[in-house]
Order: sequence, then C-alpha cells, then structure tokens
Amino acid sequence: MPQAHFDATVESPHLDVLVDLGNPFLNRVFDGFVKVGGVGLAHGASLESYKLLVKEETNEKSLEKLVHRAAKEGIQWGLVAGTYSGVNYGLQQALGENNWKTTLLSGALTGATLALTEPNPRHDRVVRGALTGGAIATAAAVVRNLTD
Amino acid sequence: MPQAHFDATVESPHLDVLVDLGNPFLNRVFDGFVKVGGVGLAHGASLESYKLLVKEETNEKSLEKLVHRAAKEGIQWGLVAGTYSGVNYGLQQALGENNWKTTLLSGALTGATLALTEPNPRHDRVVRGALTGGAIATAAAVVRNLTD
Repeated sequence: MPQAHFDATVESPHLDVLVDLGNPFLNRVFDGFVKVGGVGLAHGASLESYKLLVKEETNEKSLEKLVHRAAKEGIQWGLVAGTYSGVNYGLQQALGENNWKTTLLSGALTGATLALTEPNPRHDRVVRGALTGGAIATAAAVVRNLTD
Repeated sequence: MPQAHFDATVESPHLDVLVDLGNPFLNRVFDGFVKVGGVGLAHGASLESYKLLVKEETNEKSLEKLVHRAAKEGIQWGLVAGTYSGVNYGLQQALGENNWKTTLLSGALTGATLALTEPNPRHDRVVRGALTGGAIATAAAVVRNLTD
C-alpha cells in the first residue's frame, strides 16, 4: 500500500507586509493573495502528488497536471483571501469597528464578488455565493473564538 | 425578478459555555457543534428559502426539503466545528502551545476524522481530507492575522 508522508512547510503567519504598495488597502489585498495563494498552491500540489504516489507511475503528462492544478488552486485560494482581506479592511474603515457584523458582511460581499467573476454570472449564483460566504466567515469567527 | 433580502440573525460569538458538561474538552466540542451548527442551519435554510423565492411556488414538499436541508447542514457544519475545537484543544494541551503548527495539525486530523466517518471510508479519501483540512485551517489562520 502506498504510504503518504504529510510534510508541509508553511511560514508562520504574521502581519508583516511583503511588498509595500504605498496603500494599506492594496497591501492587505496583495498580502492575502500571496500568503493564502501559497497555501492553495501547496494544497493543489500535495493532492496531485498523492495521486501520483497512489498510481505508482509518473509521466510527463501527470507532472504537467500537478503544476496546472497547483497553479489553479493557488490563484483561486489567493483570490478568495485577497478579496476577503480587502473587503474586510474597507468595511472596518467605513464602520469603524471589526466584529461579527463586519465578518458576516465581508464574507457575503466576497462570495458575491467571486460569483460575479465567473464566466457567466447568474443572479442566483451571486446570491448563493453571498449566503455561503457570509456563513463560512461567521463560522470561522465562531471557531476562532472557541479555540483562542 | 425575485428579490432576496439578506437578513441573518446571528448571536455575537463569545467564549461562554452554553452547557457545562464538567469537562473542558467536552465543553469545547459541544460548544463548537452547537454554535457553528446554528450557522450551518441558517445557511441551509436560507439557501432553500432563496430557491423557494425564485420558484415562486411553495408546497408541502418544498417546505419539507427546506427543513431537511437545514438540519443536514446544521449537523455537518457542527460536526466539523466540534471536531476541530476538540482536536485543537487536545493538541494545545499536549503541545502546550497554540500556533500555526497546532492549527495545521488540528485541521489535518479533523479532515481525516470526518473522512473516516463516511459510510465507506477509503484510504485515499482520508489522506485527501487531511490535506484539505490542514490547508483550510492554515488559510483561515493567515486570513485571521491579516484582518485582525
């Protein structure tokens, strides 16, 4: 039976800015995109690597697939995080607070925004994206409060 | 065009214990299950309600579906959060710290555990669950550091 070794190297997350774009809003968006994009990249790469391990055969095509999947997931995860960080920052500035309302609203706006970027944005997908985004952000905030 | 009104009532998340089960570990698991289960319930209910709004017809069967979906999502979201809270609490106690390593490991263990509870747990699904769980938990920790 193939054995998978779970070995991921992730930098400790802290709030330093990787590249100063001269604007705190852009810095947040860029940081979210790059840092979480890296996690998505690692996830896509590890899933495809595991597939290769199970198959026990590797050819050029499967390696190409690994790179494609890693890149795609990196961009998708980065987009979600960058959008959320940017929206959350904007709402914090606008409302002057950061509580569960900004969290819920940021998640909803992120979900709606990402649904709008799809090739054929449909009205109902945007609403469903908003509902799901808000719910996920709220659930994450609850879990954070439980585990901190 | 049907209009959807986004109106969710969510309690402000804070770390009080709903029911004291006499054991901090059980309290965490129960709290995670109940609180995030409520978010999942609201999500399932709102998605099905939106479907009803779009369809503009409601019968007994569609209302039944709403209740089923809400209950199902409530349990699923609650299971994820309860498992994560419990695993995270255990790891914090065992390792004496709560940093990105406990986050990554808690996510991986939660993903693996939930994959094992499926009707026919397959070896590869458990590994993929662990990889995805760890990645999501890590990404959430990165986003938390960016937005706090």
